[in-house]
Amino acid sequence: MEDELAFIKRLRGKERDVPPGEHWIGDDAAVLDGGLLFATDVLVEGVHFDLEWCSGGDVGWKALAVNLSDLAAMGGTPRAAVVAMVVPRGRPALADEVAAGLGEAATNFGCPIVGGDTSAGETLVVTVSVLGAAPDSGAVLRSGAKDGDAIFVTGKLGGAAAALRLLQETKAGSATVLGAEPIGLERLRRPTPRLREGRAAARAGATAMIDLSDGLSGDLAHICEESGVGAVINASVIPVAPMATLADVFGGGDDYELCFVAADAASLTEAFARAGLDAPVCIGRVTRARQVLVEDHGTIGPMPEAGWRHRFC
Amino acid sequence: MEDELAFIKRLRGKERDVPPGEHWIGDDAAVLDGGLLFATDVLVEGVHFDLEWCSGGDVGWKALAVNLSDLAAMGGTPRAAVVAMVVPRGRPALADEVAAGLGEAATNFGCPIVGGDTSAGETLVVTVSVLGAAPDSGAVLRSGAKDGDAIFVTGKLGGAAAALRLLQETKAGSATVLGAEPIGLERLRRPTPRLREGRAAARAGATAMIDLSDGLSGDLAHICEESGVGAVINASVIPVAPMATLADVFGGGDDYELCFVAADAASLTEAFARAGLDAPVCIGRVTRARQVLVEDHGTIGPMPEAGWRHRFC
Repeated sequence: MEDELAFIKRLRGKERDVPPGEHWIGDDAAVLDGGLLFATDVLVEGVHFDLEWCSGGDVGWKALAVNLSDLAAMGGTPRAAVVAMVVPRGRPALADEVAAGLGEAATNFGCPIVGGDTSAGETLVVTVSVLGAAPDSGAVLRSGAKDGDAIFVTGKLGGAAAALRLLQETKAGSATVLGAEPIGLERLRRPTPRLREGRAAARAGATAMIDLSDGLSGDLAHICEESGVGAVINASVIPVAPMATLADVFGGGDDYELCFVAADAASLTEAFARAGLDAPVCIGRVTRARQVLVEDHGTIGPMPEAGWRHRFC
Repeated sequence: MEDELAFIKRLRGKERDVPPGEHWIGDDAAVLDGGLLFATDVLVEGVHFDLEWCSGGDVGWKALAVNLSDLAAMGGTPRAAVVAMVVPRGRPALADEVAAGLGEAATNFGCPIVGGDTSAGETLVVTVSVLGAAPDSGAVLRSGAKDGDAIFVTGKLGGAAAALRLLQETKAGSATVLGAEPIGLERLRRPTPRLREGRAAARAGATAMIDLSDGLSGDLAHICEESGVGAVINASVIPVAPMATLADVFGGGDDYELCFVAADAASLTEAFARAGLDAPVCIGRVTRARQVLVEDHGTIGPMPEAGWRHRFC
């Protein structure tokens, strides 16, 4: 949203004496002294989710998972989370459902919830903030990509956006969509933060990394802007989720795979194999020219769409 | 709210293997390994504030200040904050106003804002999470009060509640109330977290501490419950803000003074004097009997009201 950019820029304007080694505002998580990572993300009913196609438990899970994805994108390890919840008047049972989902994700990903606050309000709003530890080699920022580096993604893209599109196009109940394509809907409801993949990429020398929350176009553009580079992506090698289109991949959000960049592609692939992880897929190269291009069966053009703009609202 | 208690209890149920020295859920801030403090608080339009009597800038200031008050209540020092903001559709300028107030408080209290997220939504919701450092002597919990300890407060109570009551009773514009009593309204809009007082109390051996966000009755009851003790308060020595009543003091929130408990009252008072702080006021004693009583001109009875329940909603 434009609001978000203005708000972030306004906060950035307050950022004067950032201590050496710290990074404030503008990456997936802030990096503080001692290798501490600190991030926050908010999920709003009617903007990020609809309780027609997900449960309160799903919202709780996702609220923690999307924050942990921010830690994953720095190569980090979760340490603790706090939760602030606004519960709609007349729907008090929602608080317990959301708490149950938060608890499941906390157990699953090893991130205890150590504090919380709650209030009545109009719609369900769940804000999670997480604290993490950067890898010993240092947090992987968005700004380290160099000309010639290989660009990787950690899994199939577009599945969550395809599931949301099907839900909206068909007005079908989630059971129908679930029957047709379980993977995308589960990704939309209960994403998996790629914590192990993020750590493996950091250890193996990734020079820049981001999580794909807003679609490949917008998120890859962030890496390119912060690094002062461009990219050429080969459309035909992008791993596309079942039933997803390239439009879902480029413009659709909520996949929470990681996109990272590395000079030595072979050692990245080996590191993932040693860690028992699915091989990351090389989808293109970093270029000196500051534009992001897509090559598709011999034609080349600018990458479509600027990114996910909370289309569900 | 009942919701809050249920939610907090549910999260507490997930709390199994809390490492030694850490404290999760149930105090003003969580205490993590390495003396890290971690807390979150949310402000919701129509519940915690009304833009009839405060500006977007006031909301930003207060959202950070109430979090810093949680750190103060542990004897802590602020380190960094992150902010998640839900901005109502059609009022995009609010985001910049809130950010400006956040920035002022951040500068004023030495707590940089290092990250943020924002979304559209129905009403203004500002969630801040803070990271702080515990004092070398260890964070002051709610649970250390002992029979015979003196109970202190750091300043005049009831001012914010009195201002809110006047606004509601008279339906007067804030300018009228401001003219009649500037202190309470300013406290309501732009509270001052008692960070220096909290550190002085911790250094001088405070055994339990809490910030007065929900009124003296509710907050002192938290200390007594967590410590397994009771208290007798002397009503006639409570420092009451101008235009405030004892009902405002006991049941009204938003003062953000600190209430702390200490075995050695004299050294507490000396420590505050040495630090150049206003003397804390001793308002009563901790007792073995597990009830909170108020002595008022020779009569003694239970402390009135259970605490602030977001009366503005």
